Amino acid sequence: MTTDLFDKHRATLDRAIEACRSRESWTAFGESPADHPGGERARAEGRTAFEALLGRPFDLGGPGAPVAQPDEVSPYTGEPLGVCYPRADVEELFAAATRAWPRWREADQRTRAGVCLEICERIYLRSFEFSHAAMHTAGQSFGMSYAGSGTNALDRGIEAIAQAYAAMSRVPGTARWSRAFGSTTVEMTKRYRLMPKGVAVVIACASFPAWNVYPALFASLVTGNPVIVKPHPGSVLQMALAVRVCREVLAEAGFSPELVGLAVDTAAEPVTKLLVRHPATRIVDFTGSAAFGSWVEANAFPAVAYTETSGANSVLVHSVGELQPVLRALAGSLCLFSAQMCTSPQNIYVPRGGVPTAGGTVSAADFAAGLAEAVQAISTVPRRAAAVLATVQSPNTLRLLEEVHDRAAARGRIVLEPRPYRHPDHPKARTSGPLLAQVDIADHDLYGEERFGPVAFVIDCDDADQALERATRDARERGAITAFAYATDEAYLDRVEAGYATAGAAVTCNLTGPMPLNFSAAYSDYHVTGLNPAGNASLTDDSFVTGRFRVTQSRRPAVTGH
Amino acid sequence: MTTDLFDKHRATLDRAIEACRSRESWTAFGESPADHPGGERARAEGRTAFEALLGRPFDLGGPGAPVAQPDEVSPYTGEPLGVCYPRADVEELFAAATRAWPRWREADQRTRAGVCLEICERIYLRSFEFSHAAMHTAGQSFGMSYAGSGTNALDRGIEAIAQAYAAMSRVPGTARWSRAFGSTTVEMTKRYRLMPKGVAVVIACASFPAWNVYPALFASLVTGNPVIVKPHPGSVLQMALAVRVCREVLAEAGFSPELVGLAVDTAAEPVTKLLVRHPATRIVDFTGSAAFGSWVEANAFPAVAYTETSGANSVLVHSVGELQPVLRALAGSLCLFSAQMCTSPQNIYVPRGGVPTAGGTVSAADFAAGLAEAVQAISTVPRRAAAVLATVQSPNTLRLLEEVHDRAAARGRIVLEPRPYRHPDHPKARTSGPLLAQVDIADHDLYGEERFGPVAFVIDCDDADQALERATRDARERGAITAFAYATDEAYLDRVEAGYATAGAAVTCNLTGPMPLNFSAAYSDYHVTGLNPAGNASLTDDSFVTGRFRVTQSRRPAVTGH
Repeated sequence: MTTDLFDKHRATLDRAIEACRSRESWTAFGESPADHPGGERARAEGRTAFEALLGRPFDLGGPGAPVAQPDEVSPYTGEPLGVCYPRADVEELFAAATRAWPRWREADQRTRAGVCLEICERIYLRSFEFSHAAMHTAGQSFGMSYAGSGTNALDRGIEAIAQAYAAMSRVPGTARWSRAFGSTTVEMTKRYRLMPKGVAVVIACASFPAWNVYPALFASLVTGNPVIVKPHPGSVLQMALAVRVCREVLAEAGFSPELVGLAVDTAAEPVTKLLVRHPATRIVDFTGSAAFGSWVEANAFPAVAYTETSGANSVLVHSVGELQPVLRALAGSLCLFSAQMCTSPQNIYVPRGGVPTAGGTVSAADFAAGLAEAVQAISTVPRRAAAVLATVQSPNTLRLLEEVHDRAAARGRIVLEPRPYRHPDHPKARTSGPLLAQVDIADHDLYGEERFGPVAFVIDCDDADQALERATRDARERGAITAFAYATDEAYLDRVEAGYATAGAAVTCNLTGPMPLNFSAAYSDYHVTGLNPAGNASLTDDSFVTGRFRVTQSRRPAVTGH
Repeated sequence: MTTDLFDKHRATLDRAIEACRSRESWTAFGESPADHPGGERARAEGRTAFEALLGRPFDLGGPGAPVAQPDEVSPYTGEPLGVCYPRADVEELFAAATRAWPRWREADQRTRAGVCLEICERIYLRSFEFSHAAMHTAGQSFGMSYAGSGTNALDRGIEAIAQAYAAMSRVPGTARWSRAFGSTTVEMTKRYRLMPKGVAVVIACASFPAWNVYPALFASLVTGNPVIVKPHPGSVLQMALAVRVCREVLAEAGFSPELVGLAVDTAAEPVTKLLVRHPATRIVDFTGSAAFGSWVEANAFPAVAYTETSGANSVLVHSVGELQPVLRALAGSLCLFSAQMCTSPQNIYVPRGGVPTAGGTVSAADFAAGLAEAVQAISTVPRRAAAVLATVQSPNTLRLLEEVHDRAAARGRIVLEPRPYRHPDHPKARTSGPLLAQVDIADHDLYGEERFGPVAFVIDCDDADQALERATRDARERGAITAFAYATDEAYLDRVEAGYATAGAAVTCNLTGPMPLNFSAAYSDYHVTGLNPAGNASLTDDSFVTGRFRVTQSRRPAVTGH
C-alpha cells in the first residue's frame, strides 16, 4: 500500500521538484471548479457534506470530547457554525503524537512522501466541501476559497513536500569509505539515517489558514515528525477537515492517525503558549500577528520556529505610461479579499508634484481620486464586490478600521469612506469597502505599521526616491512581505529592486492586467524572506525544510571482498 | 582577479561538492607534512615565522591598539606567548564589519567561493607556522596541529564552502513564468537574489578551535556575511593568523579586510555575551561548554545560533573476537590529545559477568587491567606519549581531573592513576596520562556528565543491553557526539545503531586498527546531529548553511518577443 502511494504520485513529485528548480508556472490541480474531476455532482455533494457538518460533533477518532466552538461564527451569516470539535487536553495530544511517532520516524522518505501526496489529492477531491468550510470561517469568496485556500494552498503544500524530499534525497543512505592510515588502508561502510526532530506544532491564522498550514504541516510530516495543528479559534473547520483527511490516509497506510492531531482552543482560553512551550515541542510554525510572532520566535527555544507575521506593504509610483490600467490593478489589489492578505498593499506613495504619465502629469489628488473611482467600480457593485471583496473575517477588523478612519480624518483627507456593500446572497454578511486616506509622508504614525483589513493610504512624498527610502526603511525595521513599483525609468526600477532586496520584501514592477498584483505562485514566488520582522521563514526555500530532520550515522569496518 | 580565483579553485570546489554527495574519502590537501609543496624550507620558515610573532604586536591593520594577552600561555613551555593583539572595541568591530558589507553582499557566489577557497589554500601553504601556533595554544602535538587542526580542519572548511555553494546554486538567478488568467496569458520575468543575513559571530574553543571555526567562518563568509571571530582568550594565535589571511586575501580581491574581524578578550573581561546579544548580530556559531552553549542557544535570538558543545561519549562492549586489538584501539582513543576532543570516549560499559572473546570470557576486572596496560604502553613511553597525548591545554583540566579522581577513589576502584609524563622536548610541558576508574552503573553521578580531559570510566553493568539503555538515555538527555560498540552479535549491533540513531550520536562499530576510533572525516562523517544537548548544528548538513542567506525576488511583466 505505502509504496503504491509513492508510485501513484511519483510523477507529481518529480514535476514539483523540477518546478521548484526552474521556478516556472505549474500546478498540480486545476484552480477552476470547472476542472474538478467530480463535476457538478462533486459540487453538490460538497455543499451537502459541508452542511452536514454544522451543529454537530466533529468526529476525529482521537482524544477529547466534543464541545461546541463558541468563536466560530460565519462572516456570511453571522450565525455560529455550531460544530463541536474534540477538546483534547494538551498533554493527551502530545502523548498520542509521541506514541504514534516511532513507526512513522522509521518509514523511509518515499513512503512518507507517498502518504503526504495522497493526503493532498484527497483534500483536492473534496475541494467543494473544503471551500464552503473556508468561506464560512475565513470569510473568503467561493472562488478564493476554492483556488487560493484550495488548489493554490495545496500547491504550496506540495512544494514543501518536494523541497523536503529533494533535501532528504541529497543524503545518501550508505557510503563506502577507504583511506590509508600509514601503510594500512582502512575501509569502512557507513550508513546515514534521516531522523526527524520531534513534535511539530502548527499555529494557524484566521483569514487564510490553509496557505501556511499546508506547507508547514507537510514539511514536518514528510520529514517524519508528528504534527499538532492549532487552528485559530474563530476559523477551525477547514483545518479540522484537513486534519481528518491526514488521519484517514495515515491509518489506511498502516500508520497511527495520531501522527496528526488537532488542538482546538477558544479566544477565552487559548492554548498556543502551552503548545509552543511544551517540553516535547521541537518545531513551531506560526502565522499570525507580528506581536505574537515575535513572542513565538523568542520563546520557542529549544524548538525551532518558522514564522510569518505581517507588514505594511508599499506601492511606489514614480511614473507610468497609461494611468488607468495602473489604477485598476491597484484597486483590484486593495479590494481583493478586503485586503486581509499578508501580501495586500497598504501604503501608496505618490509624488507631491504629481505622476508623469503618457497623457501628462496627474496630480496626487487626481491620482487618489482616480484610485477611489477604480475601487468603487468594484466595491459598490454587489456581484463584483461579493466575488472580490468577499467578507471581513473578524468584527475586530471593523473596529480597528473605524479607529484608523477617525485618526486619518483628523489628520489627512478621507478620499474614500469604507462603506459596507450588501452581499447579494448573504444579506447579513460582514462587509466593508476599502478606506482610502490621503496623508503626508510625515504622518508616519498613521501608515508606519500594518492596519489589517481594507485600509490604504495615498502618501504624498517629495519624490519617488524619498518614498523608496521611507518604504524600504519601514520594511527593514517593521516588516513587509511585498512591494510594488510603477516607473518608466529603468534606473529607478533598478534602485527599487536593489532597495527591496536588502529590505527583504518581494517587489513586483509595472504589473497591470488580469493577474492580481499580490498573487504569489507556488514553486515560483518565494513568499517572505526572513530578512525583516514580517517573518523568519520563506515558502519554500531550503532553510524551511532542512531544519526539520537530522542525519545520524553509523560506520563499521567493511567486510573485505564485498 | 576575483573570477580568476573561482577558476583557479573550481576543480577543488567541484570535487568537494561531489565528495559531500558520495561521502567517500577525499582531502584537498595532503595531511602529512612530507607532502607540503614547500618542503623542508617551508618547515623551517614556518617555525621562524611563528617565533617572530612572539612577544610583539600582532598587526591586523584594523581597529584596536595592541595589548599583551594575559591568558595565552604555552602548555609546552609554561611561558606567556606575549603576542599583543589589537584589542578592538566591540562597537568598532561591528561598525567596521557593517561598513565593509555591501560590496561583499553584492558579489556573486562564484566570486565569494573563489576568495574563500584562496584563503584555505593560503592557510595550507602556511601550515607550519599555523601548526606551531596551534601547538603552543591548544597544546596539541605537532602532528595533530598539522593534520587535525590544519588540513583536516581546512577540509571541514572547504566542505562548508561546498555545501553552501551547492545550496546557493539551487536557486536560479532568473526565471520566465507564464500563466493564463482568464483568457489572457500573463508572462513575467523573475529575478532571485541571494541575500546574506548580516554580521556573523564565531566563538571558538581553546583546545581545537580551527576544526569548528573554519566551517563556521566559511559558511557565513561564502554566503555573504561579514564575520567576527572571537577566539578563546587562552588560545588566540592560530585564529588571529587565520583572520589575518582572510583579511589579506579579501583586500587583494578588492574587498574590505574588515569583512573578517577579530575580537580578543580576556578571561577577566569576556565579551562573548556582548557579541551574541549585539543588535546587529544575525548569526552565531559557538563551540565550548554545554552550559555556555545552552545560554547561547537561548539568548542569541534574533540571531540564529549553531552550537557544538560536549557530551559524555560511550563505548559498549558486548563481545569481541580478539581482545587485544580492541584494547589497543580504545587505549589509543583515550590517549589521543589526552581525550580533550569532543569525540573522545569516556564511559566504557563492560558486563559484570565478563566479555566473551574468542579466547574465552574475560572478566570485567581483567578487561580494565588490560585496558590500563594498553594505555600505559602509550602514556608511559615519553616519545609515544608526546606524539599521542601531547599536553593538557588548561591548568583547570588538571584541577578537575584531581576532583574526579578523589570522588572515584572514594567510590570505585582506580585502575590507572593519571600520572604526568615527561615530554622529551619540553620538560615543562603540562601533561597527564589518563585516569581510569572502574565504577558501577549505579554511580551515575560520577560518569553521567562529561569530564573534560583524560578521564575514562570502566562501568560494570548487568549486560550490554542495560548499557545501551543507559548510554543512549544519557546521550538523549545530556548530550553525546560519538559512541562506540564492540559485538560479534549482529542483532545487538542493529539495536545499537537504532538506539544511537534516535539518541543522536554517531556510532562506530567494531573498529580496530590504525584509524583513531574518533577520527571524523570531512565530506563523509556528519559531526554532531543536533538531536541532543551536545549541539544543535551538524558539520556539514544543509541546515548548517541554508539559514545563512535568504532569497529575495523581483518580477516584472516580460517584454513580449524576448
